[in-house]
Amino acid sequence: MKYCFGVDIGGTTVKMGLFQTDGELLDKWEIKTRTENGGEAVLPDIAEALKKKMEEKELTISQMTGIGIGIPAPVDEEGVVQNTANLGWGYKEVSKEMEELTSMKVAAGNDANMAALGEMWLGAGKGNKNMIMVTLGTGVGGGVIVNGQPLIGAHGAGGEIGHLCVNYEETDSCGCGKQGCLEQYASATGIARLAKKRLEKDDAPSALRSVEKVDAKAVFDALKEGDKLSEEIVEEFGSYLGHAMANLAAVTDPAVIVIGGGVSKAGDILLGYIEKYFMEKAFFANKETKFVLAELGNDAGICGAAKLIL
Amino acid sequence: MKYCFGVDIGGTTVKMGLFQTDGELLDKWEIKTRTENGGEAVLPDIAEALKKKMEEKELTISQMTGIGIGIPAPVDEEGVVQNTANLGWGYKEVSKEMEELTSMKVAAGNDANMAALGEMWLGAGKGNKNMIMVTLGTGVGGGVIVNGQPLIGAHGAGGEIGHLCVNYEETDSCGCGKQGCLEQYASATGIARLAKKRLEKDDAPSALRSVEKVDAKAVFDALKEGDKLSEEIVEEFGSYLGHAMANLAAVTDPAVIVIGGGVSKAGDILLGYIEKYFMEKAFFANKETKFVLAELGNDAGICGAAKLIL
Repeated sequence: MKYCFGVDIGGTTVKMGLFQTDGELLDKWEIKTRTENGGEAVLPDIAEALKKKMEEKELTISQMTGIGIGIPAPVDEEGVVQNTANLGWGYKEVSKEMEELTSMKVAAGNDANMAALGEMWLGAGKGNKNMIMVTLGTGVGGGVIVNGQPLIGAHGAGGEIGHLCVNYEETDSCGCGKQGCLEQYASATGIARLAKKRLEKDDAPSALRSVEKVDAKAVFDALKEGDKLSEEIVEEFGSYLGHAMANLAAVTDPAVIVIGGGVSKAGDILLGYIEKYFMEKAFFANKETKFVLAELGNDAGICGAAKLIL
Repeated sequence: MKYCFGVDIGGTTVKMGLFQTDGELLDKWEIKTRTENGGEAVLPDIAEALKKKMEEKELTISQMTGIGIGIPAPVDEEGVVQNTANLGWGYKEVSKEMEELTSMKVAAGNDANMAALGEMWLGAGKGNKNMIMVTLGTGVGGGVIVNGQPLIGAHGAGGEIGHLCVNYEETDSCGCGKQGCLEQYASATGIARLAKKRLEKDDAPSALRSVEKVDAKAVFDALKEGDKLSEEIVEEFGSYLGHAMANLAAVTDPAVIVIGGGVSKAGDILLGYIEKYFMEKAFFANKETKFVLAELGNDAGICGAAKLIL
């Protein structure tokens, strides 16, 4: 049996996993991300942690296939990043530096792409070579898998689903500076924004009016209790996301679309509202595309990173 | 030196080319597409034509790398089509049948994807591994190249750019049955439709009012003569296409977008109107994407088909 590491670098913690190459996750743990001094300690800290784990498990370098790393930034095919502000990095040859630190083979990719690859390998996308993963969290992230490989693109920026423009009439700005990005409607923040706007529009009764903090969870909780106004909000969310997915499918023709992130904790009820609007605008060849909830939660990133090196 | 064939099957004619594997096109010719009787003669006719060409050029099978074929339908990774009405075909294992007919290695793909691959290999996309080709003809076709390979997708329907919904308010229907498809605004037919609508809207003076047939060519010709109303029409065309390309780029992150098809004969003037609206909505990582005109014309399909087998 051979082994590999999957590493998922976040702005606060680095998640790590030791895998058998058949996909069995043997151990997982995390360390703090030390972003000070231009993030110079981040890679050495990881190398040190992996070395310790190998000692603990009595593994030698010859038993290791290598290390896969997910990074919260665009990463090109050579494992190079240009500017990863939340890790303190400027230009950095991540794969090369990590290979020098560990004497193991290293591959690096964007963290959203890694999560998608993880769900394809061990989660909700298992058995498919063409899929899209959409992560509905504070923002909207995405990863597109084409023929078993993450779509990286010319600048390492493939799969930036959150910044598809879905409303050319929008006047509010997205964090990216543009107006009408999918993220403004389909993220947790976006759903809270839609709710606030709807509540302010008129005096229609709603359970949400007695809720202290109207966030995405409150909207879905009220929906499940039959709240009509919450249903309107979720319909609006579903129309933006479902229509965007229909356009995405026309270009990338996935077998399955995996919905993950904090908003997906609302459960299966979410999928119906997305599928309804997807079907309305889907090209005929894409009508059989399935929608499923992500299965790996926070482990998707380390799973996909491990898969990248195999 | 080794050789290969590139074959581009259309509803009326089959175009064929004999290539050196270094990309040199040695000979090209075409035969009629006999679609009667379920198109049963199409592949045998091609096999016969290729055999004759080999005899004429004194080539043996051992000198041939194989045959690439472009087909006007979704084609899966095994070279299978489900239903190609314009060739008379139902389910057909194209690669397998052709291999049996010729004793050569065969690969088949969608014709729009082949045109994109051709432009990447020998035309306007040369030197790039990530590109989009948009063909503005009677309809809008597209091919997406990711890391040097055509994006095929789960059902062979990747790159259906013409059926991206770009206007959710549209009431007129596209040929596909949906409303608001890019094809309704950016094809030759679409531009003529925009022109008709604009001319009917009010009595604003325009050179187009004295033109017998207001088609895409007439609009661009008038634009070049400084016709203000034609410029409005081209601005509208550019906004739909440029905005759609910005969304496409956010997902596929191309280095270059190649514009081909009959409408592209308008020349460089076209590109400015697309780029202007692309830049308005492009995600920051995609701002360096270049727009160029296709270079291979009708040869793109045979070039890409040949490349597919290499």
